[in-house]
Amino acid sequence: MEKIKVAIVGYGNIGRFALEAVDAASDMECAGVVRRNPGSSAHPGLAGRKVVSDIRELGPVDVAILAVPSRKVEENAVKYLSMGISTVDSFDIHTDICALRSSLGAVARESGAVSIISAGWDPGSDSVVRALMQGLAPKGISYTNFGPGRSMGHSVAAKAVEGVHDALSVTIPIGTGLHRRMVYVELEPGADAAAVERAILADPYFCHDETHVIPVDSVDALNDMGHGVNLVRKGVSGASHNQLLEFNMRINNPALTGQVLVMAARAAVRQKPGCYTMIEIPVIDMLEGDREQLIRALV
Amino acid sequence: MEKIKVAIVGYGNIGRFALEAVDAASDMECAGVVRRNPGSSAHPGLAGRKVVSDIRELGPVDVAILAVPSRKVEENAVKYLSMGISTVDSFDIHTDICALRSSLGAVARESGAVSIISAGWDPGSDSVVRALMQGLAPKGISYTNFGPGRSMGHSVAAKAVEGVHDALSVTIPIGTGLHRRMVYVELEPGADAAAVERAILADPYFCHDETHVIPVDSVDALNDMGHGVNLVRKGVSGASHNQLLEFNMRINNPALTGQVLVMAARAAVRQKPGCYTMIEIPVIDMLEGDREQLIRALV
Repeated sequence: MEKIKVAIVGYGNIGRFALEAVDAASDMECAGVVRRNPGSSAHPGLAGRKVVSDIRELGPVDVAILAVPSRKVEENAVKYLSMGISTVDSFDIHTDICALRSSLGAVARESGAVSIISAGWDPGSDSVVRALMQGLAPKGISYTNFGPGRSMGHSVAAKAVEGVHDALSVTIPIGTGLHRRMVYVELEPGADAAAVERAILADPYFCHDETHVIPVDSVDALNDMGHGVNLVRKGVSGASHNQLLEFNMRINNPALTGQVLVMAARAAVRQKPGCYTMIEIPVIDMLEGDREQLIRALV
Repeated sequence: MEKIKVAIVGYGNIGRFALEAVDAASDMECAGVVRRNPGSSAHPGLAGRKVVSDIRELGPVDVAILAVPSRKVEENAVKYLSMGISTVDSFDIHTDICALRSSLGAVARESGAVSIISAGWDPGSDSVVRALMQGLAPKGISYTNFGPGRSMGHSVAAKAVEGVHDALSVTIPIGTGLHRRMVYVELEPGADAAAVERAILADPYFCHDETHVIPVDSVDALNDMGHGVNLVRKGVSGASHNQLLEFNMRINNPALTGQVLVMAARAAVRQKPGCYTMIEIPVIDMLEGDREQLIRALV
């Protein structure tokens, strides 16, 4: 069986873990890594890899895994889809997902390629569980409780505050979809800790949540890529109330994102041209292995 | 929008709850109920319903929900699929699922209909979660822990023992996919309790599990339709170990089965002719409502 030829676009945290997940998949091979400056920073994880600035240097590629920031997803996806290369991404700006699906869908259909968007763990695999729970108990309330784990967006917002050298915002679930923000800050020499705290508490990223600002000597010493989710739904199946459903994960965050991107890359070669979110794809299409054997083992 | 016309075939426990789930779905209408002896036992839940012995008396039907025992699924499915009516069932004999999928697939494709098999909660919605977990951590071990809740098969096996008037076998999860069997027996007058216990412990249904036999005055007084599952996987995403995934439910058992059958009935009208298990169907196809709105709310 021909292996799926995958290119990794971007080699930050997600790109590194996506490459590990491609290497671990026996039905895929990594055609290479696309970086803006291929020679700039030789990374040990790239030893022996083809690293290029233009995907066409890699020869035939079935799927490009876009390991780029959400705001860079659309321009990258349009570029590769237009070349007839399918793309997968972990676009995570919830409010813009439908618009992206619509715009990339048009490009994908025109070039006969497939785009799978928002294929991380949330949005992504959590979305599949949320959708399933919605079906199992159509009336009711779902809560997605994140953490404990680092919030990238909140960490960046805290780091942008004057007097902050580095920052880590940890998301703590307090139930019913609400979260506490534990913000660890490494101050610039001479910075006013009280002023930094006031600025963080007033920031739109933090002002709606219970937030604690804690000065530390080293933010780096606290860094841990673990994260988690607790997804709950209590609802009604037919006329029967109090159906209790729950999904929990405690995971290495970028490793799971990289793995979901690989699941999506596999599914991409099995869909008709167009743009999809993960809830629009049969789960079996995301799995490695013979279809009958998977059914025998998993159903 | 035209409502999906659904017939319920069989009106035992599952049929009753499936009918409630159809009634609760605003995109469906119940065309009627098919029973072997339509007039035999007037059930209050059937007041005002069309109850017939032949589905053709119901007029056009899109999907037949087969609320019949697993061993009766194939003959019923073949009958309705051959008429061009799609079918859904909660066939739960794990070892025979692939064979059933293959035989019903041929019939369904020939008549342009859709069959969705093993659409209960296990096999069924649990299968979707198991498959997703397999994709999220391709190397590792999954355990499905059932209960506490009644096992129909084990209860029937205990009831068949000489001297037993009625029996209830409750499945208790003891972890790592192993289960304790708590068997409550209502003895016939004059029955030998010790002999009954020996016979149950020696039965193939029970001899491999830790089993306790407890005589009670009334089995009916213990009956509760609650059940549960704890589905866990610990595995590897890419090269990152110790990824911890867990799915839990505490549910009314036949109510959830009825609801999953309704999810499958909805999905049936959205698939191409053929036979499918739930892991082969996009979850969004199982949900009521506008596709874009579902993506906005759930992804």
